[in-house]
Amino acid sequence: MNNLYTEKVLREFAYSIFRKMECSEQDALLASDVLLRSDLRGIDSHGVARLSGYVRLWEAGRINAKPVTKITHETPSTAVLDGDRGLGLVVAPRAMNVAIEKAKICGTGWVAVKNSNHFGIAGYHSMMALQHDMIGISMTNASPLVAPTFSTERLLGTNPICIAIPAGEQPPFVADFATTTAANGKLEMLQRKNEKAPLGWVQTKEGKPTTNAHGVKEGGSLVPLGSDREHGSHKGFSLGAWVDIFSGVLSGANYGPWVPPFVSFLAPPPDPVGEGIGHFVGAMRVDAFRPKEDFKKHMDNWIARFRKANTIVGQEKVIIPGDPEREQEKIRLMEGIVLNEKVVEDLKEIANRFQVSF
Amino acid sequence: MNNLYTEKVLREFAYSIFRKMECSEQDALLASDVLLRSDLRGIDSHGVARLSGYVRLWEAGRINAKPVTKITHETPSTAVLDGDRGLGLVVAPRAMNVAIEKAKICGTGWVAVKNSNHFGIAGYHSMMALQHDMIGISMTNASPLVAPTFSTERLLGTNPICIAIPAGEQPPFVADFATTTAANGKLEMLQRKNEKAPLGWVQTKEGKPTTNAHGVKEGGSLVPLGSDREHGSHKGFSLGAWVDIFSGVLSGANYGPWVPPFVSFLAPPPDPVGEGIGHFVGAMRVDAFRPKEDFKKHMDNWIARFRKANTIVGQEKVIIPGDPEREQEKIRLMEGIVLNEKVVEDLKEIANRFQVSF
Repeated sequence: MNNLYTEKVLREFAYSIFRKMECSEQDALLASDVLLRSDLRGIDSHGVARLSGYVRLWEAGRINAKPVTKITHETPSTAVLDGDRGLGLVVAPRAMNVAIEKAKICGTGWVAVKNSNHFGIAGYHSMMALQHDMIGISMTNASPLVAPTFSTERLLGTNPICIAIPAGEQPPFVADFATTTAANGKLEMLQRKNEKAPLGWVQTKEGKPTTNAHGVKEGGSLVPLGSDREHGSHKGFSLGAWVDIFSGVLSGANYGPWVPPFVSFLAPPPDPVGEGIGHFVGAMRVDAFRPKEDFKKHMDNWIARFRKANTIVGQEKVIIPGDPEREQEKIRLMEGIVLNEKVVEDLKEIANRFQVSF
Repeated sequence: MNNLYTEKVLREFAYSIFRKMECSEQDALLASDVLLRSDLRGIDSHGVARLSGYVRLWEAGRINAKPVTKITHETPSTAVLDGDRGLGLVVAPRAMNVAIEKAKICGTGWVAVKNSNHFGIAGYHSMMALQHDMIGISMTNASPLVAPTFSTERLLGTNPICIAIPAGEQPPFVADFATTTAANGKLEMLQRKNEKAPLGWVQTKEGKPTTNAHGVKEGGSLVPLGSDREHGSHKGFSLGAWVDIFSGVLSGANYGPWVPPFVSFLAPPPDPVGEGIGHFVGAMRVDAFRPKEDFKKHMDNWIARFRKANTIVGQEKVIIPGDPEREQEKIRLMEGIVLNEKVVEDLKEIANRFQVSF
């Protein structure tokens, strides 16, 4: 197939580009790992497709490739990390490492991050906790695309949450989701294919439901999980608000409509209320609650029970959060990753510019 | 108006009944406070309407009115509390107090609770943190009424989450919501009025969407927030699962389909996987992240900005989580609480049985 690449080729390419951006060797390895993990897990919108976006923000002076991150405030179980305008791909794992170290000592660790940038998939960071027999939590605020229930204004990002919970013989439970009805990446896929969106994903600039997949670009908004008030969109709004407050207000980052855009062609708001964008990560030792063997045995039982739930006619099975991404990862590791034509052009363009082979 | 009661009358009545159940004076005060707070805040399904249910569970020997709760496992920032089969109304605040004490020392405190019962409104427990300038979080699992996406089986409760965040001059942000499209209490209201439910709240026992508000009683299920897969019900399922795992699996309580029913006429499952039902509560000092004056100033700014968001034509304003309940509380404190006819009958019946005036 055309546009089919091995994980290794894309990883090495991403690494080379991050090195050209003057990231340290260690940071370039980490950042390319976050991107490739996303491509492998099937979240195409957050993988190498974003590489050129990071490059352009760096060229515009909005990403610091050599961040000196530091803890600006802490207690035994908490910290605030200043990301020094670094790549979120690098800053968020550092924050997660702080959370994990705190959890080792006092059971849980919670780190709010300011002065950062787009952190890739939330799942990468949460899943760092799993190998330590810890539950991992991560969330981030993001450029405003989402209107609160009853509003026409874009005041929140798609503000994802990921929670990763270890099991024993079963694979871990990994729920990673935008707090909107549909993630922006899904809408972009429809846009490329010139297809309509289901009603309940997008509203027009007047706040009316629309099937126009380009509605957000035309002044409309994404809507919170629940789609409308009658179906609980005020709950989706509450979730997105929670993520924004933890990521932005607790940390000292920007929040709400002040979160700077991820794209270099849009300027950040002129009146920031904080520094950069914000994340919030946490790690909880399962044995801070009960012996880990007990916990894992019951997680296995939980997962097995839900896996074998009776299904609606026409549906094969109940999907345990994390299953689709893990299955995709297995396939793509063997069969490679197919990139969209536009992404390939984009990568070729930066390859050319940086004199790196692709 | 008929069936209009002052908060004081209902509070004293609930207190008397809890005393007749042989709760200690302190526990009876606390339990009646949780119920009345719910009635005041407009969550009628969780107030004195539930009193007779607690009585019947106690009569059936399934609630211990004199629980000796104890911490069975702990670290500096975590604990597991054994509720000793007590009223959740009493056990959950005790757990929250443990979380708050831990947060004072190490920034945050997290308590998983097993061997408990229905805890009333989640909001009560989360809001305990506010007076300490802490963020409060509470969640609980519950009797299974909800089918996971693609399933016909009721495997989860409506599993609510509440997060309460202090502000400065603005009232606190308090988001308290079931992780389903609609809470069961809303469905009960439609049932009493013999009205239809909106599509997307309930499915039949075959898993088909239905407007039958009695659908759950007829073998159907409530559905997770999002309503269907296309509108993100897998995210609502993930949220409900998260609450179940934190409340049940972390604590050593029952989880999923093993959670015992809240009503005395249904027997608990014969093969429990844990003890009683479970809750999970947390407290986070805001000054464990940044000086509390800074935090409050920015929370005020967050709330003010969202409050003045442009609205869709026909909508008055964007609703900040916690506003409707607080406004209701103000009104009902002054004007009293109107009880449903059936609830009044129910209360008269227990008044009679216990020889308490009502």
